[in-house]
Amino acid sequence: MQQHSAHLNGIFHALADPTRRSVLGRLGKGPASISELAMPFDMALPSFMKHIHLLEDNGLIRTRKLGRVRTCAIEKKSFALLDAWLSEQRALWEGRTDRLEQFVITAHAKDKSK
Amino acid sequence: MQQHSAHLNGIFHALADPTRRSVLGRLGKGPASISELAMPFDMALPSFMKHIHLLEDNGLIRTRKLGRVRTCAIEKKSFALLDAWLSEQRALWEGRTDRLEQFVITAHAKDKSK
Repeated sequence: MQQHSAHLNGIFHALADPTRRSVLGRLGKGPASISELAMPFDMALPSFMKHIHLLEDNGLIRTRKLGRVRTCAIEKKSFALLDAWLSEQRALWEGRTDRLEQFVITAHAKDKSK
Repeated sequence: MQQHSAHLNGIFHALADPTRRSVLGRLGKGPASISELAMPFDMALPSFMKHIHLLEDNGLIRTRKLGRVRTCAIEKKSFALLDAWLSEQRALWEGRTDRLEQFVITAHAKDKSK
């Protein structure tokens, strides 16, 4: 659970940056090399690589070096953790609505039986 | 679009912290006062308030002061932006799968017609 929470911290932190979200958007269309990914950004390569490392360290992408070219690909599994968290939140809200609904129904029934 | 992206930065940044996610989890069950929310955390009130302000500034919760008590409630609308972003990503992957599938079907058809 602790580990799960630490992973979520990392994922959310990685997603809190427009460059990193843009890279994920590009990789959503298919794998790409670092130079291809860096092209749209007016950024020095070392700065861009920090973004790539952060995405990789948090499991949102995987990279593989073939000869001189490093290729990146999206890691969909990490998004499942995000989905799970969102579903958990929604379940809380819905449980709450259900309880409210139950309360209204019970109150209404009691009112009618008077 | 720029504004939308800035809002996403803020939302993801707000979610990258276990205390803030825990507060959202609690508020998912229903509104609560600041002191009620702060109780499970071994944290000075000013530090806790920074988390509350960050959640409020990024539109994830709303707060309202009635007399001496400030009550917080979850703001579900902000989660819709998160959902929209995730759906966008998924649409990219699926578009890609569709194109791959189309390629396989076309290749198969060509193969059969030989």
